[in-house]
Amino acid sequence: MSILKGACLIGQSGGPTAVINASALGCIEAALKSDAVTRVYGAAHGIKGVLDDRLYDLNLEDPKELSLMMNTPSSVLGTCRYKLRDFLVDDTEYRRILDIFEKYNIRYFFYNGGNDSMDTCSKISSYLSQHDYECRVIGIPKTIDNDLACTDHSPGYGSAAKYIATTCMEIYRDSTVYDTGSITVIEIMGRNAGWLVAASAIATYKGIGPDLIYLPEIPFDMADFISDIAKVYERKGDVLVAVSEGIKDKNGSYITSYFTDDTKETDVFGHAKLGGLAANLANYANAKINAKVKGIEFGLIQRCAAHVASETDVREAYMAGADAFKAAEAGETDKMVAFERGPGPGYSCHTTLIDLVEVANVEKKLPREWINEAGNGLLQPFIDYALPLIQGECTIPMVDGLPRFAKLKKIYAGEK
Amino acid sequence: MSILKGACLIGQSGGPTAVINASALGCIEAALKSDAVTRVYGAAHGIKGVLDDRLYDLNLEDPKELSLMMNTPSSVLGTCRYKLRDFLVDDTEYRRILDIFEKYNIRYFFYNGGNDSMDTCSKISSYLSQHDYECRVIGIPKTIDNDLACTDHSPGYGSAAKYIATTCMEIYRDSTVYDTGSITVIEIMGRNAGWLVAASAIATYKGIGPDLIYLPEIPFDMADFISDIAKVYERKGDVLVAVSEGIKDKNGSYITSYFTDDTKETDVFGHAKLGGLAANLANYANAKINAKVKGIEFGLIQRCAAHVASETDVREAYMAGADAFKAAEAGETDKMVAFERGPGPGYSCHTTLIDLVEVANVEKKLPREWINEAGNGLLQPFIDYALPLIQGECTIPMVDGLPRFAKLKKIYAGEK
Repeated sequence: MSILKGACLIGQSGGPTAVINASALGCIEAALKSDAVTRVYGAAHGIKGVLDDRLYDLNLEDPKELSLMMNTPSSVLGTCRYKLRDFLVDDTEYRRILDIFEKYNIRYFFYNGGNDSMDTCSKISSYLSQHDYECRVIGIPKTIDNDLACTDHSPGYGSAAKYIATTCMEIYRDSTVYDTGSITVIEIMGRNAGWLVAASAIATYKGIGPDLIYLPEIPFDMADFISDIAKVYERKGDVLVAVSEGIKDKNGSYITSYFTDDTKETDVFGHAKLGGLAANLANYANAKINAKVKGIEFGLIQRCAAHVASETDVREAYMAGADAFKAAEAGETDKMVAFERGPGPGYSCHTTLIDLVEVANVEKKLPREWINEAGNGLLQPFIDYALPLIQGECTIPMVDGLPRFAKLKKIYAGEK
Repeated sequence: MSILKGACLIGQSGGPTAVINASALGCIEAALKSDAVTRVYGAAHGIKGVLDDRLYDLNLEDPKELSLMMNTPSSVLGTCRYKLRDFLVDDTEYRRILDIFEKYNIRYFFYNGGNDSMDTCSKISSYLSQHDYECRVIGIPKTIDNDLACTDHSPGYGSAAKYIATTCMEIYRDSTVYDTGSITVIEIMGRNAGWLVAASAIATYKGIGPDLIYLPEIPFDMADFISDIAKVYERKGDVLVAVSEGIKDKNGSYITSYFTDDTKETDVFGHAKLGGLAANLANYANAKINAKVKGIEFGLIQRCAAHVASETDVREAYMAGADAFKAAEAGETDKMVAFERGPGPGYSCHTTLIDLVEVANVEKKLPREWINEAGNGLLQPFIDYALPLIQGECTIPMVDGLPRFAKLKKIYAGEK
């Protein structure tokens, strides 16, 4: 196999995570060291930065400052939620992308994101190869939602899960401290897959977590919800509930839509915008069971809480980026880096490669057999799956009692 | 001075903090070691536990398990929000308290809480002394709100401030990562004093914090709010705002009441119940300035996030409890332990004693000269005040990647 000489470009896309920059760093550091790579660029705000010809010259950054990306949450290069059209319908943007790739002689392209980003990555890969432009295209997975197909888990999930489990333990302690009776509802992210809300079950496994957990995989019924709560309230006097923002009834309607018109709003990918569910469900419960009620929405903190990131997740995220570059350097293209769990009782994890078309736009749901029969709690196989992913605490560089995040110079290619 | 022999009782009261148990532990460990103390009891749910004759026998606890209270958030003994009536009007409850104190021969009483708890503590102290029951009564301060009078700061504030500053930095990174323009409003606790929302200014001081900060000390004006946001939006494209839940207009009406009727609900102390402000303000801003808006409510997580507690705060909280016992043992009564900052450029802190009547029901506000002229940001003197309080990270005992909190046996006095 011949060595492909040229520049390397990395872009970040989709919602932030606590570890997306660890992945970017793994890829950037490997690229900066490689003899095949003439220059390393970062796209400002993902594919939008390519279309706008806004590429940061990462060779001009201080390597020490770059290394702080390891514990800096939320895309250092900027992100976007931008869907490329099908190039068979309109290839204007693809021609623009090809122009930019030619202008900078980009031969290594890495796109760091979730489902939608792998779709973008796959389309660009196809277009370039159909136009005989040699470029190795590798997707680097990232999503707190853990819903990417063909990978044991995704970088970002372990840290979000650790935040959720830790905070649920703290909230359990807080919400059960009075002797007056309480119903507390926590709303956790996850549009269609319940991986995030399921992470609250790790706190329950530790004896201080939600009594009831509702996932988007299981049709949600308001009457069952009230009856579930009433049973726990009767027995314990305090009820802690975790619900996914994406719970739906048996007809597929979001429960959020029972309370608001918010679901009519959609993002650019046509996904319904969600939110406000915890407070509404808590109020609804209060009308049926008279207790002190509270709704808590974890909101975007759950995806950017680097201060409680999983060391395992950070390390694996870096590995995903580094292995993406190694694979490209070795001649691979049109793939996504995936995680495979090693056999045996101890936990181990290594990377493998999957065809981009296999993962693009596919959502991985929680297996039904990991959820209890009543559909309001998780079983041991889920704990066995998730527990290794939240292990270890990061040593974050601190200044004045606060984390020191990476501050890049961000000099555009072509600028002085 | 003669040695007073007898049992020791500690109760916890008011809203949870990340360090209230560190204070309790300081007091309990000192009491367990003292020759003057015949038995150490913990009141289940504060003064309610005394009235109900529900005292935990802490001599029966494993000292190792007790020591885990150092990093366990939210009152281990249980808490209450219970206001004793004036005993000149009705002394029924006080007679009951005196009965229980006599029953267990309690000669050392410690009450761990905020303003309202110091009021409770002061009333009990007066009643006992008027009835010639010798008992040393000392208040141990606790409040994330930092609004206790006569003390440089209160245990609990440093950890809440560290959570707020850290999370604001992470949210800043998250909310400014797209290139589409955004207005994010964070709602932070603090009914009448702005100490907590001011802590977000530490993130701003670090370059990645709220652009605008609104405190209850400064009358809030909706038109000024929109004009402030518009200016920042024009300049930066993203705006991060922190507001106190307790912001009021120039007539003293809560801004929350502009959007809901929630302020009509009050707690047992007659304080208005607040909440939901961030989303409402964000929506209001959106109607005037078209941008992606988001409201985030820190909610109760800011008062129980032991995982990001300030080591300084935890250490000082323990000292407050230990010094409370030492003072009582030395013959002091009817006092609250307070913090005094040492002189000189370096930070140091030691305890002192204040008459309970001086602190009970008094609220300490943020000095006007620490707030900028426009009333929407903090000045350097506040940073100089607050920064030392958030220093240091705790080494929390971890099991399976999650904190190991104290689990007491909680055996009632008199039970087997």
